Amino acid sequence: MSDPLIGTRELNFLLHEWLDISALMNRPRFSGHDRGTIDAFLNLAEKLAHEAFLPHYKLSDEKEPWQDARGQVHILPEIAEAVRRHADLGMLAAGFPPEMGGSGMPYLACASAFALFMAGNISAASFTMITAANARLISAFGTPAQIDEFAQPQIEGRWWATMCLSESQAGSSLGDITTRAIPGGEDALGHWYRITGNKMWISAGDHDGADNIVHLVLAKVQQDDGSLPDGTQGISLFIAPKILPDGERNDIRIAGLNHKMGYRGIPNTVLNFGEAGGAKGWLVGSPGQGLAQMFMMMNEARIGVGIGAAALAYRGYRRSVRYAKERLQGRLPARRGGEPVPIIQHADVKRMLLAQKALAEGALALCLYCAKLVDQDDDFDCVELLSLLTPVAKTWPAENGLAANDLAIQVHGGYGYTRDFEVEQIYRDNRLNPIHEGTTGIQALDLLGRKLLKGEAKGLVVLLERVQACAERATREARLKLCAERLLAMWTEIRETIEKLRSLEFARAVENATPFAAAFGHAVVAWLWLDQALCAAAKEDRLLADSKERACRYFYEFEVPRVYAWLAPVAACSDIASTADETVFD
Amino acid sequence: MSDPLIGTRELNFLLHEWLDISALMNRPRFSGHDRGTIDAFLNLAEKLAHEAFLPHYKLSDEKEPWQDARGQVHILPEIAEAVRRHADLGMLAAGFPPEMGGSGMPYLACASAFALFMAGNISAASFTMITAANARLISAFGTPAQIDEFAQPQIEGRWWATMCLSESQAGSSLGDITTRAIPGGEDALGHWYRITGNKMWISAGDHDGADNIVHLVLAKVQQDDGSLPDGTQGISLFIAPKILPDGERNDIRIAGLNHKMGYRGIPNTVLNFGEAGGAKGWLVGSPGQGLAQMFMMMNEARIGVGIGAAALAYRGYRRSVRYAKERLQGRLPARRGGEPVPIIQHADVKRMLLAQKALAEGALALCLYCAKLVDQDDDFDCVELLSLLTPVAKTWPAENGLAANDLAIQVHGGYGYTRDFEVEQIYRDNRLNPIHEGTTGIQALDLLGRKLLKGEAKGLVVLLERVQACAERATREARLKLCAERLLAMWTEIRETIEKLRSLEFARAVENATPFAAAFGHAVVAWLWLDQALCAAAKEDRLLADSKERACRYFYEFEVPRVYAWLAPVAACSDIASTADETVFD
Repeated sequence: MSDPLIGTRELNFLLHEWLDISALMNRPRFSGHDRGTIDAFLNLAEKLAHEAFLPHYKLSDEKEPWQDARGQVHILPEIAEAVRRHADLGMLAAGFPPEMGGSGMPYLACASAFALFMAGNISAASFTMITAANARLISAFGTPAQIDEFAQPQIEGRWWATMCLSESQAGSSLGDITTRAIPGGEDALGHWYRITGNKMWISAGDHDGADNIVHLVLAKVQQDDGSLPDGTQGISLFIAPKILPDGERNDIRIAGLNHKMGYRGIPNTVLNFGEAGGAKGWLVGSPGQGLAQMFMMMNEARIGVGIGAAALAYRGYRRSVRYAKERLQGRLPARRGGEPVPIIQHADVKRMLLAQKALAEGALALCLYCAKLVDQDDDFDCVELLSLLTPVAKTWPAENGLAANDLAIQVHGGYGYTRDFEVEQIYRDNRLNPIHEGTTGIQALDLLGRKLLKGEAKGLVVLLERVQACAERATREARLKLCAERLLAMWTEIRETIEKLRSLEFARAVENATPFAAAFGHAVVAWLWLDQALCAAAKEDRLLADSKERACRYFYEFEVPRVYAWLAPVAACSDIASTADETVFD
Repeated sequence: MSDPLIGTRELNFLLHEWLDISALMNRPRFSGHDRGTIDAFLNLAEKLAHEAFLPHYKLSDEKEPWQDARGQVHILPEIAEAVRRHADLGMLAAGFPPEMGGSGMPYLACASAFALFMAGNISAASFTMITAANARLISAFGTPAQIDEFAQPQIEGRWWATMCLSESQAGSSLGDITTRAIPGGEDALGHWYRITGNKMWISAGDHDGADNIVHLVLAKVQQDDGSLPDGTQGISLFIAPKILPDGERNDIRIAGLNHKMGYRGIPNTVLNFGEAGGAKGWLVGSPGQGLAQMFMMMNEARIGVGIGAAALAYRGYRRSVRYAKERLQGRLPARRGGEPVPIIQHADVKRMLLAQKALAEGALALCLYCAKLVDQDDDFDCVELLSLLTPVAKTWPAENGLAANDLAIQVHGGYGYTRDFEVEQIYRDNRLNPIHEGTTGIQALDLLGRKLLKGEAKGLVVLLERVQACAERATREARLKLCAERLLAMWTEIRETIEKLRSLEFARAVENATPFAAAFGHAVVAWLWLDQALCAAAKEDRLLADSKERACRYFYEFEVPRVYAWLAPVAACSDIASTADETVFD
């Protein structure tokens, strides 16, 4: 345990000192918990992550999932074992209420444990995330019989899960799915349908790790004239298990494995539903509610992606700190001769480490802040703020965690480019995160288009209040005053940019959504960094206070100026890209 | 040939219209050439790159070099064949004078051909780059007998080459090498030495592609007391072939292969010299001249790395344009319903394509501009400017080419993350370029420390004159006037930053060399983009003029603001990273 996945000191600071997880406990559903149960849970999680997830990280990259002659997909046995131990220790159930076999742990604590598992082996941890989110969706929208039949075995860890949204012709554009559901009848589990269609990019779509796989499938109910309803409003949600309750195989076949650049421990599959007449699937809720229901799982998955990206950023940071302390090379510029020094003494290496700290800890702070908002779902402000920040929690860690991993390789020099070290794999694994669960461009449209320009943007009001409050407190701390001024100036610029965009036609206003979202994300993390530094400054641990203040100031000196660079073309309403004719690219 | 590696139109523009390669021909050594011979050479190069380099690009990633039981390294036969055909067609010899079997082609033309080979298969093309640069170094500093014995077979393509600089404990810090040379005697090839030591990161260090391998080895001549001289001044250069002139194996053994994240077609090796008493190596020039001589090869390699990075950026750009034209997904925001559109119609996809165009063509323009400066070695201004721009030509394409490849993956969505498409490999291959031949941090120290702060920085004077002249011409073009103003403002900021840094103690001044170099590189490419746009504006090809103007303006609207973001902490002399104690990273 000498090289922690995420330092206990860091997690303690985030959970107890900064986010004050104990304050959540006055909610009845968390009343069984206190600091002691949370800490015990996280200690167990760290131990499990070290013992069961980390040891096969490289192996899971080298030995990809494979299909046998019968088409059955096999995963690394060590991964299956890790996921099973995770469930056996109650990690998967933790976030569910006691009546479902869980321990009613706040999501904030579950998310922190999840970060540890992601840092240990992101592929293995992904199985747990998808399963928990699938069970949570069924618990929220399913009938008692469906919950009992399909969610309960997942919470116990016996069955694992998928989310089947994309099709090869419909990735970002879910309204175009053509998977078809034809009414078949009704039984104790509800109305069941015959589902036919092909699903693409299905993580954990088949494997030999669990007794059964519960697919949550988006499909469209066939209309009387045989056609499918248009757009996203026509989408319904179905539960289609690999093995039916009667023990028969459902009509779901794996059509192939996608071979990925990284993130290789979890199979990514193409699934064919209904090649032999129709896969049996039970409707969840009412027809046409599919996408709205699925958003519950997608939102959890989006924060999950952010946590994974943050965990990889953190892991790469720790690996490069260790390397920089051990590697001797060169001398300080002020000195000639003498022995080489550990490279951590070189200014440029310190810069690359401090940048990683600012990005990795910033990403983790952002995700855990959002995880706390999930627990505060009885507070209107928190619900609105979470809605606004969810695309940020997904994209900012994905993009900036990857940037941190790029620096981790660079600290290692040539060694970092070899497979003898871990950082190149971390970098490859993290490269998926700006893509899955909605690309960076799609998240940017969600943030700017849906959350800020359409509707009342109440989340922004809440956010600006919190930014203002943070800046006011920081103004009273001499060492953080300058950061506070910069924070307010930056948010003024963002607010004015949003106002300018509101005056444009919608299609024009969202043309530069991606650089806008990059700026917005940096401004959010700048706020959270100042908030962390303020919190740490008031504590007795001087080393922690100094390191948080330094990372905060690094963020303001080196990262905050980029906000203006991203905003410049957005504020100028640049149409240089959007008006480009295809011939420009010939 | 329907999907060109680098468009003929683009290469024609750069070479003939923008860089006016014909103007080089009044130099006696290029007098045998005219536009006809250059075009014929490049047409042949493109055909060869398509036929012999491109077809095994993916295969060379899947089937890495391997060692047999005797230790012999084997490379993909298709790569060996490609490199041989390249030499047989006179491509390797082209840049050498006729008396050495070459055709006295300007380096600018050779570099353009090299870009095509790099775009086809960067690993295969690297063999040719190292060999040509090795032969060029021996031709410049070796005796006639050494040239005849060691350079000539390389120029004919029969023997291939390496550069042996790094050791496991001495990468960026070459003064610390411990490879030892003990005088052995003198023969027709000059003074020979017994060399013992271990070299790390040796590309093409062993393989079965050529009859012999000519290693250029940095080592230190043992002093009378048995010690080695200190620092870089004590470094000498030796020619140590795998097979000695008498047909015996030299005492050079391969200790292992490094397994890389990408760039896998060329073996990267650990070489042990003198395990059986000493490898025979002939001194080049005088003792202590080794590093100065090696800089000739390193400078060629640095531009070579830049060209490779630019070529990969360009390749990824072309792949993602093709994908974006074919892939149907979503609808334009102004419309509801109807059929999905090719994603090239979406504003965000256009932005990602235009960014790639600006980065890839900008990188290629930068490298070819520098290649022309190599040919203008009789002009003092050009020599100074080349010296200043060499670290930029290495780093800017490496960092920004990778950024372009990141966007190429993003345009492909999930497909781009799979090994079924080419872009993930392009991205992995390109990730080496910010590391080898001197990391981005080392190049930044060269640029800021050696080229700008130490000495007179005459190259900067030349650069500023050219920037000024370009801006003045652009001011007279209404559509480019704003870019001209921004160009001058940006360079004023950079000049003032340099002045500020000059007032600091040297060690302090170079602490933020890396962000400074990022800003400087962007400012150089901004100048070259405006220069390209100006040149194109005066031509009849309106499509080309429009596309160059649009990419130029994109660069000024989206990329130039980043210059100020990088400069901010540099100009503020931020010491937030350099004064960080190690405990910050605990």
